[in-house]
Amino acid sequence: MIRIKFEILEETINKVFLRQGIEPGKSELLAKIMSESSLDGFQSHGINRVPMMVEYIRKDFIKPGNEMFQIGGNNLYKQFDGNFGIGPINAWNSTTEVMRIANENGLGLVALRNNNHWQRAGTYGWKAANEGFILICWTNTIPNLPPYGSKKNLVGNNPLVIAIPRKGGNIVLDMAMSQFSYGKIASYARRNKELPEFGGYDENNNLTKDAQAIRKKGRHLPIGFWKGSSLSFILDIVAAILSGGNTTRIIGEKGVDTGLSQIFIAIDPSKFGDSGFREALITQTIEQFKSVSIKEGSDIRYPGEATLRRRKENLGKGIPLEEEIWEKVNGYL
Amino acid sequence: MIRIKFEILEETINKVFLRQGIEPGKSELLAKIMSESSLDGFQSHGINRVPMMVEYIRKDFIKPGNEMFQIGGNNLYKQFDGNFGIGPINAWNSTTEVMRIANENGLGLVALRNNNHWQRAGTYGWKAANEGFILICWTNTIPNLPPYGSKKNLVGNNPLVIAIPRKGGNIVLDMAMSQFSYGKIASYARRNKELPEFGGYDENNNLTKDAQAIRKKGRHLPIGFWKGSSLSFILDIVAAILSGGNTTRIIGEKGVDTGLSQIFIAIDPSKFGDSGFREALITQTIEQFKSVSIKEGSDIRYPGEATLRRRKENLGKGIPLEEEIWEKVNGYL
Repeated sequence: MIRIKFEILEETINKVFLRQGIEPGKSELLAKIMSESSLDGFQSHGINRVPMMVEYIRKDFIKPGNEMFQIGGNNLYKQFDGNFGIGPINAWNSTTEVMRIANENGLGLVALRNNNHWQRAGTYGWKAANEGFILICWTNTIPNLPPYGSKKNLVGNNPLVIAIPRKGGNIVLDMAMSQFSYGKIASYARRNKELPEFGGYDENNNLTKDAQAIRKKGRHLPIGFWKGSSLSFILDIVAAILSGGNTTRIIGEKGVDTGLSQIFIAIDPSKFGDSGFREALITQTIEQFKSVSIKEGSDIRYPGEATLRRRKENLGKGIPLEEEIWEKVNGYL
Repeated sequence: MIRIKFEILEETINKVFLRQGIEPGKSELLAKIMSESSLDGFQSHGINRVPMMVEYIRKDFIKPGNEMFQIGGNNLYKQFDGNFGIGPINAWNSTTEVMRIANENGLGLVALRNNNHWQRAGTYGWKAANEGFILICWTNTIPNLPPYGSKKNLVGNNPLVIAIPRKGGNIVLDMAMSQFSYGKIASYARRNKELPEFGGYDENNNLTKDAQAIRKKGRHLPIGFWKGSSLSFILDIVAAILSGGNTTRIIGEKGVDTGLSQIFIAIDPSKFGDSGFREALITQTIEQFKSVSIKEGSDIRYPGEATLRRRKENLGKGIPLEEEIWEKVNGYL
């Protein structure tokens, strides 16, 4: 593990994408989004994803020159076609647009089809909360999670984001439907460590904390057994029907994580009451959480708290990266 | 267990509430809502809740004569104060109002504070889907679920509903944040049966399927460990800040499940594309689900499917009720 300064990571990723022929404005935004994911500790959707994005650009799954365009809507909701452009940039622009609508009207909705992978879901929640908006957003993806009891992956590990702005630190839930991310399970498997809770099934279809066994079997646990797979199913359907786009089933047929459907709902909380009331309510709840200790030196965290903590630490000390991936990314230059 | 015809159950509940002094129009609607929950197999929020509602009316927690009133909003979102009136009726009227908004504008939002318990969350999802709308709604409640790792109940078992209209049978997710409902755990405990999956913790803080041990300890499992409790936390905060109402923490201080905050977001899918496209997408996904069998005679169910199946069966055969509760409810007449 090495530590790299945020600015250096951002500049390096920017250069890599410029070398892929992405125009400067897009390349800078994409580098910012991906290096911020790394800064926040989400390497799996930060620097670790750069090689896959390069590959997808080279294979023409991602078409960096393409712009998203409107296909329907009114002044309150808009439907866009992502045109298979750069996923995080389309999602970023959709977030900007839905906030603009909410700023005018109190709330707004954007449905986006044919987008590429938006990388870290939380990116859009943090952006909206930083600018004072509540954001509810989600995406579908390839079938990579089994419905409860099934041996076959039929639902997507569709992340759901709910973000609330707060002066004392935004609340940002960024929740995928599997108990542990694949990145986390891989990391536990590499270190030969047991997961802190059950994370999937072993060869004999028993629930297990053994990360290697879960990887071998390929049956990850959806959160709450049938509940997580049902939530995943319904988020998929809503995203597809509102955007006029693909469901997880159709994305699975293509075999590539492209042509996704995404939903963005923004609410302007300043129109619903004053910020003092809001801050007080949230702070009281957090304080109550903090008064209940789990074990020595540990406490109950609110969604986004650990992210903010890592961000601060990594801004100071540099971002911890695996040397191998750092070299690989530099190899594109 | 006895079976009672739907019409008889509805009439009986109506009479009970009329005897409590509820005016006829409200009484009929309340009886319809609660008997339909029983019809769908959710006794815990159907007939089994009638005694508690009677008690709450007698204790003046529920004020049947009170009407909800608007406290803010514009033509796209409205904030209401439930005025501590009849919970399911305020929620029903909020659903009607948010659908009216969505019908005009494509989408709408209603935030409701100071409402009483709305009983079965799915009620409002089914209503909206029956009338052609997508509905996302949720409520907060008393602190009855521990955040991950905590021994103290600090978050509410806040149900989240997402409903999609469909000619071939609505899709309705009605998902609380605990792995099993308290009613279900009580029922397993009574029958001395093991839960099908882990549902909470035993005396030694180990995960267990033993329903009696979970009841004894009082530590139910939030779905997905930290994920369910985080989702619960954030739904609570959003409901409270948009309605200007109470959070779970404040409701807990009162010690009674009253003064709740609720959110209703409606979307008119007919404005986002034609129903043929919608039906085809959903049907294809369901067919794929059905093609993967779990075990002999069983299949993967979509959200709402089992409800619809029970409804049909109970309409024909009568609703299965515990004799004791049927007698108790009749005792109010």
